[in-house]
Amino acid sequence: MSVTFAQGFSAAGVAAGISAVEGKKDLALVVNNGPLDAAAAVFTTNRFCAAPVQWSRAVVSDGHVKAVILNSGGANACTGKPGYEQSRATAEKIAGLLGASANDIAVCSTGLIGELLPLDHVLAGAQAAFDALSDGAEAGADASHAIMTTDTKPKTVELEGSTGFRVGGMVKGSGMIAPQLATMLCVITTDAVVSAGQLQAALNAGVEMSFNRIDVDGCMSTNDTVLLLASGASGVEPDPDEFNELVAEATASLARQIVGDGEGASHDIRIAVTGATTEDAALACGRAVAASNLLKCAIAGNDPNWGRILSSLGTVSPEDAPFEAEKVTVDVNGVRICENGGAGRDRSEVDMTPREVHIDIDLNAGDAEATVWTDDLTHEYVHINADYES
Amino acid sequence: MSVTFAQGFSAAGVAAGISAVEGKKDLALVVNNGPLDAAAAVFTTNRFCAAPVQWSRAVVSDGHVKAVILNSGGANACTGKPGYEQSRATAEKIAGLLGASANDIAVCSTGLIGELLPLDHVLAGAQAAFDALSDGAEAGADASHAIMTTDTKPKTVELEGSTGFRVGGMVKGSGMIAPQLATMLCVITTDAVVSAGQLQAALNAGVEMSFNRIDVDGCMSTNDTVLLLASGASGVEPDPDEFNELVAEATASLARQIVGDGEGASHDIRIAVTGATTEDAALACGRAVAASNLLKCAIAGNDPNWGRILSSLGTVSPEDAPFEAEKVTVDVNGVRICENGGAGRDRSEVDMTPREVHIDIDLNAGDAEATVWTDDLTHEYVHINADYES
Repeated sequence: MSVTFAQGFSAAGVAAGISAVEGKKDLALVVNNGPLDAAAAVFTTNRFCAAPVQWSRAVVSDGHVKAVILNSGGANACTGKPGYEQSRATAEKIAGLLGASANDIAVCSTGLIGELLPLDHVLAGAQAAFDALSDGAEAGADASHAIMTTDTKPKTVELEGSTGFRVGGMVKGSGMIAPQLATMLCVITTDAVVSAGQLQAALNAGVEMSFNRIDVDGCMSTNDTVLLLASGASGVEPDPDEFNELVAEATASLARQIVGDGEGASHDIRIAVTGATTEDAALACGRAVAASNLLKCAIAGNDPNWGRILSSLGTVSPEDAPFEAEKVTVDVNGVRICENGGAGRDRSEVDMTPREVHIDIDLNAGDAEATVWTDDLTHEYVHINADYES
Repeated sequence: MSVTFAQGFSAAGVAAGISAVEGKKDLALVVNNGPLDAAAAVFTTNRFCAAPVQWSRAVVSDGHVKAVILNSGGANACTGKPGYEQSRATAEKIAGLLGASANDIAVCSTGLIGELLPLDHVLAGAQAAFDALSDGAEAGADASHAIMTTDTKPKTVELEGSTGFRVGGMVKGSGMIAPQLATMLCVITTDAVVSAGQLQAALNAGVEMSFNRIDVDGCMSTNDTVLLLASGASGVEPDPDEFNELVAEATASLARQIVGDGEGASHDIRIAVTGATTEDAALACGRAVAASNLLKCAIAGNDPNWGRILSSLGTVSPEDAPFEAEKVTVDVNGVRICENGGAGRDRSEVDMTPREVHIDIDLNAGDAEATVWTDDLTHEYVHINADYES
């Protein structure tokens, strides 16, 4: 279903010969058939942002997007002016097919950095994707497959509001996932009647609580793009709060799916920090713990190593997160293995067999809290990233 | 040789039964026989600093240290008041043997966080180490073995000044190595006639350019301690500049040896950033690149992946390091594979077979520079840290 769950959207996913994997679907197209074409977006803050990010940022700036074309198999990042011209040519091709302006066509790319795309394959694929456009469930599924790189499964979401409007979405992302947006491409669609301003506000809030709170490997991508498109095809003007909640639920679900498919991961780790003086303080602590390679290796080895939790917590400056070391408690999977900054119950009591590992840190310094998600660090992560296009 | 290279120091390394590894030397003693007992130190900034760090910080605060006792096999960190009492009891034992004050005995511990030491073994080992004290080369070597944990080899340094004074040293450290001190214990000795103030100034400058510029895994320890002890036994008052240089050379050598023995590492990576507006800007860029798991995996796979270099460089804020993305060049092992922020010569031209990988980044924004060292990220790193005391 994915992006076609919302009315007013058609999609396609085709094999265009961009990916090095023979026959892999690698080009997706999502078209907003209206009547509205309102759009909002959030992009990577990386200073080496890719050509398609530069292109799409300009496209979305007026709040209108008619279609998005996305490819895996190449990031078109650090490719200079020729790369930018590739993004423009791709947008122009779709614009010609749709009878639209290229300035309303967003472009997203993901894959290896530093190489131009095989443009002839992209343009031929754009034609094939246009020919295959459909508003059916299978077309949405095809699109969600076509954006995958090291992802092992497509990641989609379908939600319905109480007044009948819908939100659908797809995301790709598995490695190069860091707190300031994850390495990912995400398209969320809705048939609600909403303005671009409403979309942007809902997206900003949703992204802050979801994609900005996951961390697979602390690496920020050059290509991250999250698009939220509204067709208005349901004719429903949603309750603003409910609309915001549904967008937040969609981004949370997609972000959670990214962690669940983190490169090589054998555990998904939820780090909940409570008792902080402020939410930012809780977040700083959660992120410091989520960034610890040593802890992530320990979890891979089914070791609830609270010493590595405390030592990473101890790197957060007192200005960023006031707390007293000897008041901190840590529970892993419900067992309080650290009490008052020292040893608590025996680590052997912790059942580490579930895929999900819950680390609950109480700073005992205030009432604020925050939760971040990460993955463990496994042999398989190294294998994937040592051998990826080497 | 290590710490006994400088005159006026005796040392020992014995197997005290603290380590889980049967028969491993795990307790070292270094005694300053004077006539001076001047000392300086730098400690971890981790908020969960270990009991021996708390103890030794107080000991060194008056600029006098008569002896240092160091153990592997247990960090005595996050062990609360009982842990602090263990450090005190250990210092008191050595003080009694030497006829000194416990307030002049520094204590260092390394190993698993969160468990108390087997104090009876430590105290019996202290006696055995005292009985084995010698100023010979073998005693210094024994001490450098006794502080090893996941280190695969001892790390020592011996330097001689032009006027006959000497500097010797030993360090342990292999994992949990991050820019704000590495996870390590380090003792440097000198027979020069210098004051505690001179020692501290020389040590601060040396550490800043060495231990603070290496990063194995971005994880900061609870136990880091660097001690610099002067016996004055040579009778030589050194030229201050030459003394500072020798201390800097000693710390640089020991830091380089840590990177060379980084957990599981198959490559030592030197990241030199030039053309920055300030040294801090260059350092921020170097550290961002050194912290990239993705790049470190690529290097493990012999892939000079400049896209991952730029994407990590792109996470540094423009305030911290002003530069233009399209002016950056990157050489790997002398081949300019990135020119003007885009592709340069083909990556296949880069010979990745040497253990040392040189990444030279020119920001083309100014005249300042900085160099940091790190390791690649291998299967073996994960193996060591997933299975360490699990």
